[in-house]
Amino acid sequence: MNAPRRAAAIYAATLDLLTERGYAALTIEGVAERAGVNKTTLYRWWPGKDALLSAAVRESRQTRFTAPDTGSLRGDIVAALTEVAELLSAPVGRYLAAAAISGENPEIDSLTREFAADRTGREQILLDRARDRGELTEQVDARSVFDPAIGALWLRILLLREEATSGAIAALTDRIILGLPRTEPARRD
Amino acid sequence: MNAPRRAAAIYAATLDLLTERGYAALTIEGVAERAGVNKTTLYRWWPGKDALLSAAVRESRQTRFTAPDTGSLRGDIVAALTEVAELLSAPVGRYLAAAAISGENPEIDSLTREFAADRTGREQILLDRARDRGELTEQVDARSVFDPAIGALWLRILLLREEATSGAIAALTDRIILGLPRTEPARRD
Repeated sequence: MNAPRRAAAIYAATLDLLTERGYAALTIEGVAERAGVNKTTLYRWWPGKDALLSAAVRESRQTRFTAPDTGSLRGDIVAALTEVAELLSAPVGRYLAAAAISGENPEIDSLTREFAADRTGREQILLDRARDRGELTEQVDARSVFDPAIGALWLRILLLREEATSGAIAALTDRIILGLPRTEPARRD
Repeated sequence: MNAPRRAAAIYAATLDLLTERGYAALTIEGVAERAGVNKTTLYRWWPGKDALLSAAVRESRQTRFTAPDTGSLRGDIVAALTEVAELLSAPVGRYLAAAAISGENPEIDSLTREFAADRTGREQILLDRARDRGELTEQVDARSVFDPAIGALWLRILLLREEATSGAIAALTDRIILGLPRTEPARRD
């Protein structure tokens, strides 16, 4: 995507201000001041704060799922759930979830659902790799496997405001693995 | 809790207006007009719209979990998940979830977490009953069992705006049961 010079500073300022002040108080002028650019530069690139916020969210490292390839199904699941937990624990994650649920900001809403679809695609790759390695005996559907664990993270982090400890993520991973059609896992130690 | 005459009509008007117009446009005056009562009556009982909304949500049938006693663990789980799905599918459920996540309305936020704790308590009763009947071989923790299924309902209904069909609820129930320490289930047909 095309972007102005200093785009990284502009995106960072946008997400910082969202975090500090909330969506209602986020303005193009405030971002321009924080990023040290002229507000006309911002208006040349984005018609308003929703477009700017969407771009900032899209480019944010926090919203990118990588689905790391750790070499084992368990390691991959822990890594994927840890990424989700980190995003949900960040203010931008909380904001995106609330915006998507309320439906009051259609641009952010569709962006969040796009992220969810992208995440599911990466989770499917992770499961397909495990099948290729012989850890799974049949193909499994990523949503039916991952959505319960990720939903549990939503309740824990977003609703109950509890920390997603590594122990909690390990327990969710155990529960996922229990439900999968497995061969005996190959030992890697 | 004490309440004015016509409380049921006042609560219904509050939730109807929340659904139709959203939180920002909800006013004591609007509720008074819709319910056909004088606004001074409302101000005598509730200092503002948050207090009124909290009372309306507390008294709403939609937010009450009953955790029905169907006689079997599977039937009880299906009934409990169906109740949650119905609440999340109603506008008041979507509003409560978004408010709890955003944290912008502390009164609604704490109320929603109170509901979550109440729900978990009722789910624990359901699991304890199954153990008393001999369907489960040991005590299990309600949150670790139910939160993944309810979290999956959050993603499905609130984030992806998909219907929670009876087939989807049955699949979540199967997944819960798969993870439980069971004896052979007693046949009830």
